[in-house]
Formats: sequence, structure tokens, C-alpha cells
Amino acid sequence: MTGYDIGPWSLRWRGLSVPQLRRTESTFALSNGHIGMRGTLDEGEPRGLPGTYLNGFYEEHALPYGEAGYGYPEAGQTVVNVTDGKVIRLLVEDEPLDMRYGRALEHDRELDFRSGTLRRRTLWESPTGRRVVVRSERLVSFTQRAVAAIHYVVEPEDALQLVVQSDLLANEPVEHRPGDPRVAAALDAPLVGDFAWAQGARAVLAHHTRHSGLRMAAGMDHELDTHEGLRTGIHAEGDLARFTAAVDVPAGGALRLTKYLGYGWSAQRSVPALRAQVDAALAGARQTGWEGLLAEQRAFLDDFWEVADIEVVGDDELQQALRFALFHLLQAGARGETRAIAGKGLTGPGYDGHAFWDTEMFVLPVLTYTVPDAARDALRWRHSTLDKARERADVLGQRGSAFPWRSINGAECSAYWPAGTAAFHVSGDVAHAVAQYLAATRDTEFDRECGTELLVETARLWMSLGHNDPHDGFRIDGVTGPDEYSAIVDNNTYTNLLAQKNLRSAVEACERNPDIAGTLRVGADEVAAWREAAERMRIPFDAMLGVHEQAEGFTAHAEWDFEGTRPEDYPLLLTKPYFDLYRKQVVKQADLVLAMHVRGDAFSAEEKAANFAYYEARTVRDSSLSAGTQSVLAAEVGHLQLAYDYLAEAAFTDLHDLHDNVHNGLHMASLAGAWIGLVAGFGGMRDHSGLTFAPRLPPGLERMAFRMSFRGTRFSVSVTRDEATYRIVSGGPLRTAHHGTPIEVGPDEPVSLPVPDPPTPPEVRQPAGRAPARRFPPGG
Amino acid sequence: MTGYDIGPWSLRWRGLSVPQLRRTESTFALSNGHIGMRGTLDEGEPRGLPGTYLNGFYEEHALPYGEAGYGYPEAGQTVVNVTDGKVIRLLVEDEPLDMRYGRALEHDRELDFRSGTLRRRTLWESPTGRRVVVRSERLVSFTQRAVAAIHYVVEPEDALQLVVQSDLLANEPVEHRPGDPRVAAALDAPLVGDFAWAQGARAVLAHHTRHSGLRMAAGMDHELDTHEGLRTGIHAEGDLARFTAAVDVPAGGALRLTKYLGYGWSAQRSVPALRAQVDAALAGARQTGWEGLLAEQRAFLDDFWEVADIEVVGDDELQQALRFALFHLLQAGARGETRAIAGKGLTGPGYDGHAFWDTEMFVLPVLTYTVPDAARDALRWRHSTLDKARERADVLGQRGSAFPWRSINGAECSAYWPAGTAAFHVSGDVAHAVAQYLAATRDTEFDRECGTELLVETARLWMSLGHNDPHDGFRIDGVTGPDEYSAIVDNNTYTNLLAQKNLRSAVEACERNPDIAGTLRVGADEVAAWREAAERMRIPFDAMLGVHEQAEGFTAHAEWDFEGTRPEDYPLLLTKPYFDLYRKQVVKQADLVLAMHVRGDAFSAEEKAANFAYYEARTVRDSSLSAGTQSVLAAEVGHLQLAYDYLAEAAFTDLHDLHDNVHNGLHMASLAGAWIGLVAGFGGMRDHSGLTFAPRLPPGLERMAFRMSFRGTRFSVSVTRDEATYRIVSGGPLRTAHHGTPIEVGPDEPVSLPVPDPPTPPEVRQPAGRAPARRFPPGG
Repeated sequence: MTGYDIGPWSLRWRGLSVPQLRRTESTFALSNGHIGMRGTLDEGEPRGLPGTYLNGFYEEHALPYGEAGYGYPEAGQTVVNVTDGKVIRLLVEDEPLDMRYGRALEHDRELDFRSGTLRRRTLWESPTGRRVVVRSERLVSFTQRAVAAIHYVVEPEDALQLVVQSDLLANEPVEHRPGDPRVAAALDAPLVGDFAWAQGARAVLAHHTRHSGLRMAAGMDHELDTHEGLRTGIHAEGDLARFTAAVDVPAGGALRLTKYLGYGWSAQRSVPALRAQVDAALAGARQTGWEGLLAEQRAFLDDFWEVADIEVVGDDELQQALRFALFHLLQAGARGETRAIAGKGLTGPGYDGHAFWDTEMFVLPVLTYTVPDAARDALRWRHSTLDKARERADVLGQRGSAFPWRSINGAECSAYWPAGTAAFHVSGDVAHAVAQYLAATRDTEFDRECGTELLVETARLWMSLGHNDPHDGFRIDGVTGPDEYSAIVDNNTYTNLLAQKNLRSAVEACERNPDIAGTLRVGADEVAAWREAAERMRIPFDAMLGVHEQAEGFTAHAEWDFEGTRPEDYPLLLTKPYFDLYRKQVVKQADLVLAMHVRGDAFSAEEKAANFAYYEARTVRDSSLSAGTQSVLAAEVGHLQLAYDYLAEAAFTDLHDLHDNVHNGLHMASLAGAWIGLVAGFGGMRDHSGLTFAPRLPPGLERMAFRMSFRGTRFSVSVTRDEATYRIVSGGPLRTAHHGTPIEVGPDEPVSLPVPDPPTPPEVRQPAGRAPARRFPPGG
Repeated sequence: MTGYDIGPWSLRWRGLSVPQLRRTESTFALSNGHIGMRGTLDEGEPRGLPGTYLNGFYEEHALPYGEAGYGYPEAGQTVVNVTDGKVIRLLVEDEPLDMRYGRALEHDRELDFRSGTLRRRTLWESPTGRRVVVRSERLVSFTQRAVAAIHYVVEPEDALQLVVQSDLLANEPVEHRPGDPRVAAALDAPLVGDFAWAQGARAVLAHHTRHSGLRMAAGMDHELDTHEGLRTGIHAEGDLARFTAAVDVPAGGALRLTKYLGYGWSAQRSVPALRAQVDAALAGARQTGWEGLLAEQRAFLDDFWEVADIEVVGDDELQQALRFALFHLLQAGARGETRAIAGKGLTGPGYDGHAFWDTEMFVLPVLTYTVPDAARDALRWRHSTLDKARERADVLGQRGSAFPWRSINGAECSAYWPAGTAAFHVSGDVAHAVAQYLAATRDTEFDRECGTELLVETARLWMSLGHNDPHDGFRIDGVTGPDEYSAIVDNNTYTNLLAQKNLRSAVEACERNPDIAGTLRVGADEVAAWREAAERMRIPFDAMLGVHEQAEGFTAHAEWDFEGTRPEDYPLLLTKPYFDLYRKQVVKQADLVLAMHVRGDAFSAEEKAANFAYYEARTVRDSSLSAGTQSVLAAEVGHLQLAYDYLAEAAFTDLHDLHDNVHNGLHMASLAGAWIGLVAGFGGMRDHSGLTFAPRLPPGLERMAFRMSFRGTRFSVSVTRDEATYRIVSGGPLRTAHHGTPIEVGPDEPVSLPVPDPPTPPEVRQPAGRAPARRFPPGG
């Protein structure tokens, strides 16, 4: 079986497996958070899905309803496969190089986490027996945001005529995914040509979308290094620009092509302005040159790994997976710059390219503690959509801001309100991420420009959604928490605890920035009301069972018949009606357990152990969001092997294609869950007030180390079975705590402390057949 | 202003008001429960909506979803406007009679509740000054189910040439209602022609629907009585058959045309079989003749009024409205014969022609106590759909049978599951109607053929939906009760009380019919489980407020801001999002109050008074289902004027067009609510165990009397301010109770008893601006 080679710093696939291409197109995707390119073969075909994406560039379509209702979103948004600049076709003496024909004697692709490039090497024999070696290397530049580049080398075994065609190709035909025919129609050739120009080795195509009216331009330029007798041509028309080079290459000779790509899009700028932008990007790229781009890319990544790297000793495959995760999280967020970080990043069309709350609760913690500027930019995107969120709250009869369940441009796109609109925790998640970012960075500029306003507007939403009731405190009724197998519940514990923190963060923000509070018309009464609501917040607890309720009434609901549920019935949402899932004690994904992670300060250790056992027995993990969080709490309550199993599940979700859908793109939140499982799980990192650790190695690992950034200081935590060592990498001293003991770590003054024995928790079991795969590391 | 004349036995509209035609097309509709014809003018135009319906004849269309889910219904059904046989056009010396041109010097239409006909008399002057009197009378026969007939007379003032065209017209163009374009497309010319034949004075057209594949045939035949020189012709083609008669009529002469119509439809029978059926219907009608049909119709109605009439003295308009209501309820149900009784009957295309739970809870009580065979037939329809209901339960992961929220053929058509699928009370409502019918008739044949099976299958649904919980008894979670401003709640009191009764009725049915119980594989354990579940049924009560909760947690929800809601914001579902309605204490329609009516045995008098006051303050009556029930409870707790106001609202919903939608059809449940308000409200009729009364006259009425049928006995209850008299009309003695005192009424032995003073209830108020109009009867 073909599969990935295990290596510490790269992901490599040897051999050709056409049916597996669609998987590797996602795992080998390159992105800088602005441009995304799936890892398709240079020659375009065979392929699973083509895919070139520009963050924020979408087409719009009507959302259909069998029975419409007031306030239902009317327009959906779907990420568009934009003009494809990856395509470089090769003709070997008139035979097109196509991996489905002839023989791929050697074929090898490798995503390099340190160079930030995708390399390919193929020894291909044509049907008539001619052999060429094709080597290509591709990058999407972290340093030049609008630029991608491909270095393409052909070395024939014998003297041969080679023709290379390098394309810009708009409106590539895509196999329609099942679903609403109107969406499919909207995405059938979504780009309308505005402009096509070509000269020398350069061409530019400009298009706009039919319904959303967004404009984009793509340009390409080329450098050739080859033999005499080269003939080149270029032309551009509507949806195609093509640069052609033909040359006779002697035995031992080579054709070397560097293709520079520039992209730009805008909702407002004109076609000439976009063209100018693309031309400028190409000019910059050519000035830097291929080797220069490579060097910049490596320097950028060297810096990233200095602050973000994770080492694990004892599980090489996990080592690879963790760096793979970090690399893709960086790719998703590095240069988003006030655009959303989508659920799939820019690696595929899954979830229509929408961003969800997972960005704030899973992806941003990673970025906040490794590349805080990227976290800041993602939160600036939320801030830039405040008008839409305010408008949405208003339509819903609420005050403050209601952020959307799913969106590209900030407008709600969810056509099923019980799991969309009602999931108001999204706004609490945004506030949580803001507070976390501010605590981790003390970024006063962001606080004053965006943070305080975001906290105030979300606090206002809770005051409007909730009410002080004579029965039992401040209630937030009729909302949906993280668990998608419940909906429209009263007093979801997670939501209420996030709201509580949101209200308190808003109080603090207004105290920090009284002038901004004044501008936002926050009065003393309002602040007092926030305090009181936070104080009186209802947190449902079942005294009979001694556990917290996921939401009011949850623990009195019927149990799900797990014994009678067949393996093929999972994920349950595809085989069971929502109504039955909603009213029973079956949990799709960590909800109360997630609350115990991010609001761990609201639970005692005993409560955590009892709650974890209770919900573990009812959680089916039909969502890729769940395993990382379960790993964190399993580690905290003392189930270290189970925590390890969950960490592995999160880390290998995409590499092992556990949900059989990686072809639609990577699961960013699951990748982030791997980091969270390691850093917050085995590292015990918490940030309830200040940064604290409680590291403890799982069985099977000999050592682990992770790095973070906190308030400008970069440091590492290295953990063995007996001891943890805190070491400053750069910056000032770090005040933290180790298993509850406050410590201060100075530059060049590492602190080592013993690791205490884990607590002995109550036994836990999962629903029948839903235990995670036990991970026995190869070396363990 | 034009409007209805007030008269005791008819509804009459004098003068012509083209914009009001669409209202009167519904109020003047004729139907026998099998065929329905809107009260359009003979000449077809001007009109609001054409409309000829065959009960059960529908077209199918796909239901669209922005985000689909497992178990969502995929096909919708919509009633089809079938071949129109009402059209008779008149040419007066080449000028078509059209009420929009020339002058309608006199114009008068009258729906006669005793003859069961719609009469029209028009004195029309053509644009060139020619005058004719047109008189027509139309009936849909109660006695010959497949037959309708029109008697059409033209009397010119001067000698004139008259041409009459009598049509069968399929696929009439209908102005599209707003909504899903796919539905509109499905209903654009839904009939595909199969057959057209004409000879002599008779023609037949046969069609089928494109998607649902149902077949129908319509035939017409004619008798003419006129002067010499008559020339007639007939032809038929695709969507049109036309009989033409031309004659010179002398001054003082007349043209008299009788048009007989026959209809048939089937999902299975062939075109020739349908044609034969229509021909047979026409042959029967001609044999009976127009006068014969009139006589049969009157005899049928005489019998109806003997058992069903209501008299009120002191409010003539209410008198008329009550008979109007009874007449239309009879029309909706008389000859349905194992087809559904739709929410609009066969009076218009509203609600897509679907039947809802209102049939069982509002319409069937009226029929059960007046025309029990019609109630039986409607329940036989439910029984005939048991396979679909079992299948639906199975898809939903439940046992037993789940009846649909809305349907024509028994398959669920609701595209919004929180208010459709989740409204499982529908099945309890069916069981309630079955138990009520059986108690009122002791119809053992129905019991053995249908009743017991319906009770068992619905009881099984509750056992599957609910569970015995250690916390608080037998819980039914995650369902939606009658109030559509709440959804997906736990332990809706109404639902649980209906389920309780359903379980107990099933126990009794199995005890009555042990052989059938055996066939249905009901074991002793199952019966014991039903008993226990009924015993332990959770009924949520708020001890702090001293009231029952509509559902668990309801009374702790936020109050709706009624003061801040503007009059134009009602109905709230059009201006407020469901999510906000669902989570607040705002009630669309009687829910807990309906439970206090139909399960009044489960509440004390004090609880009823306290509950009524609590829910009255939170009920906005955005549904036409509500007023009748509020009238009943207002009367019971002692708010007699308020009860009267609500009774009037129910009774005048359609005549005063209170919801501005009567053009889409009459509100059958509201018409039934008028009967219920009078009989169960002021009559105090209850049937919890045996039939009992507690009559009490509202202020403003001098006297009222109503008639009913119970176990074969017809009797009347006549009420004055001081006294009530029970009198047998036909049949054996009646055992009942008067204000708690058991009485026996023998044939020719009327019983008169004094009416006690009403209790003094706590004061009640309605939400701001939502009090019902105070009714000051014209004579009061």
C-alpha cells in the first residue's frame, strides 16, 4: 500500500496512486492564508479536485427553504475555485506527460515543513518508451503575500523535443458535489471574463463573479533556462492564458522553467487597479527570483519553528503529524490579514469555504501562543464584520452583536437555524479568543482599536439574550451549544460559562479603557448589570447524579441505545433524525467537556473527574472537533493513555483520513486539536489567570518539548517522565506555575521541577464501539 | 359598504364588489366533502381564484432544503385546481356578460343553509343598454357524491339573441402565490390530458397529474328548456369541452339550462374506468333531475339541522355565523369517505390543501356529536394511512405510528421539522378523537376494524418516545405542543396529558377486544407498561408561581416585551425570528388552556382559574385555532363576557375576514371553534367520562339552544338566564349531568334545572393590544 513516509520534517508520498490523489491534494496543499493551492500535479490531470483559492473570494447563491421563516438568511456563499496558475503541461515529442499513460518508474512528492515547498520528482516513460525526469518545486510565499512560484525542470534521458505549456486557466470544470442544484448552478463557471492580456512571457486574466460581484486578477510570468533553439509564444483569451516553450534538449540537458504567479482580488477596486496590483506582485517576485523566494520562505519558517516547534520522542509518526499540523495551521493563518480562517483553511472546498467558531476556540489558541500576529489578524476580521453582526442581532431582536455560525464575508449563511443562528456561543467564543489574545500579548493597540469593542458588543448580546429570573438566576434560554446533537436548549453550561467570562472581560476592558467605554456609551449601570449577570449566571447541576448538566434537563433525558446502534450508523446525523438525537443523552462532540477545558476555573477537580466519566460514556465523537478536547480533560483527570489515544486521533484525522473526507480539505480545528492535546493536555497549559502548566508524560513517550510565545517571551517546556524544564528561548522572564507551584523562569535560568504522580480517576468507558483506537507507538 | 346581510338561515351579499369577490368565493363555496367548488361567478370572470377540488387529489413536488437532514420529507403535496365545470358564459347579442362592463343594476347572491344551494340573481345592462336577468342556482350534492349541478336561467327584458357556452376547463391559469418557485412550477398547468370526448349535450375530459400520477375525469351533461330555433353544438379537445346553445328569446321569454357535472378520480383505476364512473354519475343525476336533486339536498339538510342546529336569541349576527359554521363543517365532512378533512375543507388552496391535527381536535368533536358517520369516515382515513404512519415512525427511530403534521395522502409534507415532525401530539389527537367517537357512539364495528388498532399503535409511539426516568417519572422530551411559538420542548403538558389518555384508552380497547389485542401482539407486559407510564406521566407544575407549566421550564423563560411590540408586528411569526419566540413566554395559541379543556379532568377548578389567568396574559392569538378554546375556559372559570368575545372572534374569523386570508379558504377549525365555544363553553359540555353539561348564558344573550347526538339519541339543551332544559328529540333516554348533578332525560320527559351563579375568578388581562374585540350584540 502506498502511503506517507514517516519523517520528522516532511510529508512524503512515494509511488503513484491515482485514487489517492484527492487525499494528497489536500495534505500537500500550499497556502499563506491569502492564496491557497491544492497539491494537484503540475500537469493538471489526473486529479481529484482542482483548487486555487483566494481568502474571502466567494460566489453567492439563494438559500432555499421548504418553509421559510422571518430572519432566515437568504444568501449563501461558496468559495470559488479561481484562475488556476499551477498548470504546466509537458509534451515529450508530442506525447503529453500523463501519469495515467506510459509508466511512472519513479514518483515522489514531498511537502517540506522547513522549506515551505512541495517538491515532486517523477521518472516517466512515455507509451513509446521515451524517458524524462520531471522535478518541480512549488511555493506560496509567506513573505510576498500575493505571490506563488513554481520551479519546473525536465531532464530527458535522450535527446528529445520538449514542449512546455504554462497556463492560467479560469472556470475549470469541476465534478459537481451532491447537494442543492442551485448551488451547483451558481458554481458552474462562476467567473465572468473581464480582461485578458499577454506579452512576452507574461499574461494577466481578470474576472468577476456573477452574483457576488467580486473581481479578481491572476498573472503569470516566466523565466526559462535551457538550450538553443528555444521558441516561445504567449496568448490570452477569456478563460485561458498560455505560455508555450518548445526546445530540443540534448541528452543530459535540461529545460528549467520558473513560473511566477501573482493574484489579487477586491470587491471595490477596478480591473485596471487589480491588474496593476498583479503586475506589481510579479515584478517583486521576479526581482527576488526563485532562489530569493526560497531563502525568504526558509527564513520565515526558521523563525516559526523557533517559537512553535514540538518535539516528541518515542512516537515518530506523531512527531511528523504534530509538525504537519503546525505547518498547516501556519499556512492557514499566516497572511490572512483581516480575512477569516476557514474551517478547511485554503486546502479545499469543504464546508463551502466557511469559517466557524472552531477558528476562535481551536485554531486561534495555537496561533495566539505561536504566531500572535496571525491571531490578531483573524480577530481583526471579526472586528471588520461588526456591522454585519450588529445588523444580525437586530434582525434577531437582540442588542449587541451576533456573529454568524458560518460565513465567508461575515454574513450568516446557515440555512438551518437550530444549529446555526441559535448557536450564540459563537459570539462568546470570539470574546474568549479576544480575551485570551489580550492576556497573552498585552497588545494595547488591538485592545483599543478592536478588542474592547468586541468584548462590549458581545457582552451586550448576552444581556439581551439572557434574563434575571426569580427562579434560578441569570438564564440564557433557547440556544444551541457546541454539541450538535442537542439544539435549542436552556442554559447550556458551556454557553453560560463563556458568557460569564465574556461579561467579566467586558467589565475589565471598560475599566482599562474608560474613554473607549465612553465612546461605546457604556454606563456604570451597564457595567453593574454585567457584573451581576455574571455573578448570578445559572450553571445547571444534577444533584441526584452529582454531575453538571450539559444543559438544563439534559441528564433527565433518555439514554441513547448505543448497544443497538450499528457501526455503520455512525456518524449518527446521516442515519438518525435530529429530533431523536436532540432529545437523548447522546453527545456529538465535547461540550460540557470543552467547558471544563476553557473554563476549568469553574469546576473542582472532583467535578471534572465525575463529569468527564459521565459525558465520556455518552460522547460518540461524530465531529472532528472532539478528540483534542477529550484528550485535554482525560489528561487532566489522570487518564493518560486515553488522552494519548485521543491526541493521536486528532493528530491523524487528516493523515489517516479518519472521516473519509480529507479530499474536501484539511480539518484545521482537528490539526489545532493535536497541538491543544499536547500542550494543554500533556503540558497542562491553562490560561484562566496568567499562564500555568501541569505537565505529565503519557505512557509510551520518552520525552516531549513544546515552545510558546507569551507577552513577547519565547520559551520551551521540556518534559520527561520525572521532570519538566522551563527554558527561555528569547525575551524577558516568565512567571508561570508548575502543578500549582508558582515559578519564575529567567533568561539563561531554566527551572526544572519534578512531575507529580497523576490522580487516580474513576473508570471511564465510551459508548459501545466508540472507544478511540488504542495507540501503541511504534517504539513503545 | 357592501357586506353580508344578516339573516338566520342564509348568507347573502347584495351588490357587486369586484375586490371582495375573492372573499365571497370562499364563504359561498359549495362542497360535499368529496367535490368542492369555490363560489366564483358562473361566467368565470372576474374572479379571485378559480377552484374546483376533489378530496385527495394532489400534485407532488420536491421539498427544497438549504441544509438537508436525515428523515426530512422529500416530497410536498399540493391540492390541484381540477377541471372546472362551473363555467357558463353568456353572450347577449354578441356582448359577453361581464360584471366589469355595462352595469349590474341588481346583483344578489345567497348561500342557503337549508336548501344547500348558492343562488344568484343579476339584472345586468350591457354596455349598449340591453338588459337581462340571470338567475342561477348551484349545488354540490350531499346525496349523490360525484355530482354537482347548476340551474341557469336567463330572462331578457326585450327580445334578444342569447348564446350560452357551458365549459369544462382544465389547467385554468392561476395567479401564482408567492413562495417556492418549484412549487409554483409544479402547479403551472398540472393536468396532462388523457382523453376528451363530446356528443350531444355531454362531454368528458380525463387528465392525470404529472408527478403524483393521479387520474381524474370530469363530465358534463345538459338539459335545455327554451324557445324554438335553438341551435346547440358540443366539442371537446385537450383541456376544454364546450357545449354551446344559441337561441332567440322573445320579450318575457327565458332560456333555462340545467348543467349536470360528474367527477371521479383514482390513483389506480384506468381512464376508461374513470370515464364510466363519470358517465354513471351523470346518468344518475339526470335521472333524478334538477328538482329531484334539490329535494334530496333539502331532506339531507333537514335531517342535519334536526340534530345539529344552534339557536341564539339576542345576537342575530352570531345566530347566522353559527349556522354558517355548521353548514360549512357539514360540507367539509359529509361525504369525505376515508379522505382527509383539510384545514380549509374544499373551499380554497390555503395550506396547500393539507389536513392537520385541527381536524381531530376541533372539527371532529362537532361531527362526532352531530354527524357521527362523517367523524367515523375521517378517522377511517387516518386508519387507511397507518402504513405510512408506521413507516414514518420507523424512519424516526420510533415504534408504533407517527401521524403527519400536514398531509393530503398521509405522508408527512412538513419541511420544517421543529414545528412538524416534532409535533407528535398529532398522534395523541387522533387517539383522542377515536376515543371520543367511540364513547359518543359505541360503534363496535369501527372499534374492531379501526379504533383499537389506532389506539394501540399510537400508544406504542408514546412508549417509544417517552421513558421512565429516575428523576421525575415518565417523560416525553424534545417534542412540540400545539403552541407554535414554542418547539422541541420537554414534557409539554398538553402532549403528556393526551398521551396519558391515549395509553389508558389503549388499555381499555385491548380489554374490550382481547382478540384484536392478540392480533396486534399486545401482551400483558405491554398493557402493564402503558398503565404504569400513564400513572407516572410527568406533568410539570411551577410551585413558586402556583401554575402548570406549558412545558418544562416554560415559566422560567423570559417574558415577551408586549408593551414594546407594535400592532403591525402581529402575527409575530412574520416579524420575529422563531428562535426568540420559542424561548420566551409568548403563546401563539391555546396549549395549556386546550389541555384544560380536553383533559379538564386532570385539573382542579382552582388550578384552572390560576392557569387561565397566567396563560391569558401571554397568549397573542396569532392562530385562528385559539379563540374557541379560550372561550371554553373563560366560560368555565367564570369570565362569561370574555368567553362571549372569544366565541364571537371564532365565529366571525371568516365572515369578518379577521386574518385577511379568507380568499385562500375558510378556517374549518375556527368554524368548529364557534360550535365548541358555544356547546362546550356556554353549554359546559364535557365528555371526560360520560357526557356532562354546565350551561350558563353569557350577558347579552336571552336564550340559547343546541342539539346533539349521543349514542343514537338526539336531544336538545335549551338555556335561559335562570334555567336549562334537556329534551329528547328522538331515541332513548339520556343520562348526563347538569352542573355536577346526575340527571336522566326520558323521551317526552324534559328535565329543567336552575342555572347556578358563576364562580368569581381572578382578574385576567391579555397582552397589550391583544384583548379580543368586546362584543356588544346589536340587541344588547
